Amino acid sequence: MNPVRTNEGVSVAPDRTVYLLPGEADSQAGFAAIRAKASHFRNAGAQVIVVQGLGFVGVAVAAAIAAARDEHGKPRFFVIGVDLPLPQTYWKVAKVAAGETPIVSPDQDLPQMLHAAVCEVGNLAATTCEEAYALADVIVVDVPLSVGERTVESPQDITIELHHFHAAIRAVGRQMAPEALVLVETTVPAGATEKIVLPILQEERHRRGVTAPLHLAHAYERVMPGPRYLASIRSFFRSFAGIDAESARRARAFLTAFIDTQQFPLWELSDTTSSELAKLLENSYRAANIAFIHEWTLLAEQLGVNLFEIVDSIRVRKGTHDNMRYPGFGVGGYCLTKDSLLAQWASVHLFDSDVTLDMTLQALRTNYQMPLHTLGHLSDLLDGELSGKTIAVCGVAYLPGVADTRNSPTELLLEKLEQAGARPVVHDPCLTTWPEAPHIVLASDLATALRDADGVVLAVPHRDYLNVTAEQWTTYCRAGQAVVDAQNILDDHTAERLHAAGCRLRGVGKGHWHKRGYSCHKLEHAAS
Amino acid sequence: MNPVRTNEGVSVAPDRTVYLLPGEADSQAGFAAIRAKASHFRNAGAQVIVVQGLGFVGVAVAAAIAAARDEHGKPRFFVIGVDLPLPQTYWKVAKVAAGETPIVSPDQDLPQMLHAAVCEVGNLAATTCEEAYALADVIVVDVPLSVGERTVESPQDITIELHHFHAAIRAVGRQMAPEALVLVETTVPAGATEKIVLPILQEERHRRGVTAPLHLAHAYERVMPGPRYLASIRSFFRSFAGIDAESARRARAFLTAFIDTQQFPLWELSDTTSSELAKLLENSYRAANIAFIHEWTLLAEQLGVNLFEIVDSIRVRKGTHDNMRYPGFGVGGYCLTKDSLLAQWASVHLFDSDVTLDMTLQALRTNYQMPLHTLGHLSDLLDGELSGKTIAVCGVAYLPGVADTRNSPTELLLEKLEQAGARPVVHDPCLTTWPEAPHIVLASDLATALRDADGVVLAVPHRDYLNVTAEQWTTYCRAGQAVVDAQNILDDHTAERLHAAGCRLRGVGKGHWHKRGYSCHKLEHAAS
Repeated sequence: MNPVRTNEGVSVAPDRTVYLLPGEADSQAGFAAIRAKASHFRNAGAQVIVVQGLGFVGVAVAAAIAAARDEHGKPRFFVIGVDLPLPQTYWKVAKVAAGETPIVSPDQDLPQMLHAAVCEVGNLAATTCEEAYALADVIVVDVPLSVGERTVESPQDITIELHHFHAAIRAVGRQMAPEALVLVETTVPAGATEKIVLPILQEERHRRGVTAPLHLAHAYERVMPGPRYLASIRSFFRSFAGIDAESARRARAFLTAFIDTQQFPLWELSDTTSSELAKLLENSYRAANIAFIHEWTLLAEQLGVNLFEIVDSIRVRKGTHDNMRYPGFGVGGYCLTKDSLLAQWASVHLFDSDVTLDMTLQALRTNYQMPLHTLGHLSDLLDGELSGKTIAVCGVAYLPGVADTRNSPTELLLEKLEQAGARPVVHDPCLTTWPEAPHIVLASDLATALRDADGVVLAVPHRDYLNVTAEQWTTYCRAGQAVVDAQNILDDHTAERLHAAGCRLRGVGKGHWHKRGYSCHKLEHAAS
Repeated sequence: MNPVRTNEGVSVAPDRTVYLLPGEADSQAGFAAIRAKASHFRNAGAQVIVVQGLGFVGVAVAAAIAAARDEHGKPRFFVIGVDLPLPQTYWKVAKVAAGETPIVSPDQDLPQMLHAAVCEVGNLAATTCEEAYALADVIVVDVPLSVGERTVESPQDITIELHHFHAAIRAVGRQMAPEALVLVETTVPAGATEKIVLPILQEERHRRGVTAPLHLAHAYERVMPGPRYLASIRSFFRSFAGIDAESARRARAFLTAFIDTQQFPLWELSDTTSSELAKLLENSYRAANIAFIHEWTLLAEQLGVNLFEIVDSIRVRKGTHDNMRYPGFGVGGYCLTKDSLLAQWASVHLFDSDVTLDMTLQALRTNYQMPLHTLGHLSDLLDGELSGKTIAVCGVAYLPGVADTRNSPTELLLEKLEQAGARPVVHDPCLTTWPEAPHIVLASDLATALRDADGVVLAVPHRDYLNVTAEQWTTYCRAGQAVVDAQNILDDHTAERLHAAGCRLRGVGKGHWHKRGYSCHKLEHAAS
């Protein structure tokens, strides 16, 4: 009696669950129930919050807001997550509506709290209906804003995809209650709140005849994938700014209601451009510090020294040098790979400025190309012959211990390996699929991945790799195999063992291995 | 009966004391007394230490070593400071020999301890006789090693002045006892201990028929000018390495005898190249972080925001972002301006490597030119007319609160002001003379310096400047004056007051001042 409506399209989640895209009637029916719930909670004294965008940040923010309680233990907020009824987004709405998290995360708090809010307390819902914005006291904008190419030669080459962002803000403007606060959390080009968001909202409100003052603010999260994912929203420092004193006051009150501001006091900046720039600077700083160390990685390898040891010795200088980065494989994720571009784009397009962030953009280029250095080691060890070789690539996630593969540096390595005619075998203990490269079948375990490999790249320092003993490595690897450790996963003892077993080794930042002859066949071995 | 020997040349200290260069006979007579003292202390169980080079580091190291006591309160060491009998160096020997410090420092410990060691305990002496090296159990090399041009376009352009360093090491090799330890503290190109010092010492020892194994190590200090100058030698982390296990063991024992290694454990690196590279990396990191912020300073000014506020808001992230630098005037001193060049030089000349430290060298160029940004603000405020203008330049030292003017960024500003035909008036509360620019007469006080100035540059955040009240600034400055604050010395309240009083203001990193119209004459004022 409920025939499958195959003509309306589907949305497929990364876990392969298939959701039918909702028809207008279904959406409206679902939304009617949400509206009723919102009324119910509002009558009980709660505010209604709409989170626009159920991505990596939006979901966690929605769960954090829904978890806020007043002094009597009652929910402070009724939260509605909104995303678009499109194949690439709808599955998130469906999952949240069912009390499931769309995000794979090692943080167990998130699925628990999300499930409790949706299925037990009932103060978290999800919909595709933009009429939800009309119910909100606060609309939190968490829609993505992406860049085109991630490495550019000149500031003029930077493109950002503003279309969806514009459309999202316009939808808010069409629907929002006159007195609602719009809080932009999306990482945007500096100046965007005043120069992009504000005019769109004003235009739409003007069209509707709204004359009340607009309340608009920017606040940026510092969400981190990993076991403290939700805590990185609720229990960490947060900066914000309003377009005027009342907007700032309301943003402060809202943030205080779900963030542990006792331990992590809010930081109010003078204007939204400052808040936006702070986010971009913060991430650009990290990216630049990584790129800086990459230069010295190349030098340390030439000098025959172990840069990990050297960096450790310098990091004792707390407060000035303890954030020095280590040599590594590359930089991934959503923020460090693009935020500098948003700053440079803002300079050109929003402020008509000729300032060029030379070091900052150079850092992005360096970080993007970093995996090619690891590839160079692999190629050296295989005498330049990658074609036809089976290469085990260990690690896809852009951080250890997480399943987040956005802009993984492994992508570039894979692309180059495939171009060179190699046969990559990919393994990651945190992944069963690789969303950005669904054609890649992941090896079930490390031993299997390594068994028939001519070359091995250790790309991510997952705990599962660090826990492998020297004994196990000598079992997994075999004589003649080329092993490149890009993440200090193999200690010197293990390297010596593998060398003795006939492996050839290189380590990113480990010039001392090269000096000790680990790049060549062991002499006795070669002589035998 | 003691006629002045005018034909033998003199050595003039920065405080204008004139010392006659010693004749050979005088030197030998003085050294005979030192030799006798050395014997006396050695018989009492002390070791003899020679510190080669009585510069900024050598003097403090000598004082720190002389202050070391054993468990019975007896001096562990008899210390001899050695420097050359040349006009530019001899005054240091003369001062130390008289129990006076050659270094002007706000640290009162240094002159007290130096005086006590020389005049009371008698376990510190100074000489120009290279025979002193023959007495030493440990020879600490603290001679300078300078670079040619401080900014270069390409790695091939880097020159370093090795001649004096070679000669110093050769003198040690000629004289040293076979079993003595040579501890290089000079900041050298990575690899220099093994590739430069070791061969010279071996050559000289071979010439003398010495066959005992050479004991050679590298350890680098982290000395900081300022009130904790001596403490930065004795009570801070220290890294070191030996050319072999015995050299490392002896270096550790020696360093442990005068450094608070309980609180600041020594860090032994695998080889001397690692120790040398660590020092260069550490300072290059700091320099790069400064240059990075300069880029964002330019952007923040264009965007009309206050970068000081933004950096403060980001620095709450302890351990990852709390060493972010502030906007500023420039970078001076002996280390941050050159150490990156030593690393790049080592790559080319000692390791035949083609690695180029692009970001690192770019950072040096950025830092070197940074004062020109401040000059640009000044020029803007004076409508491009610097010729004939009196410009008060406030601050010469490269750090607040110190009298250290080596490579002061104020030098470049002065040079450009003079080229443009301006009349600079220079003030620095920590200085009575400017050793590198003796032709400059320093103003006696801030009010005097500012009185007739058309333009003012606040270049160093000395406490004396920070303590000036808004009221005082409005008295010191006058209507029509152009004031550029390159160091966040004037707070917003003061800036508003000065603007109201008819000054035109710019602040490095203070885009919000420009946005508020402080760069122009105040409207009411202009209209009147």
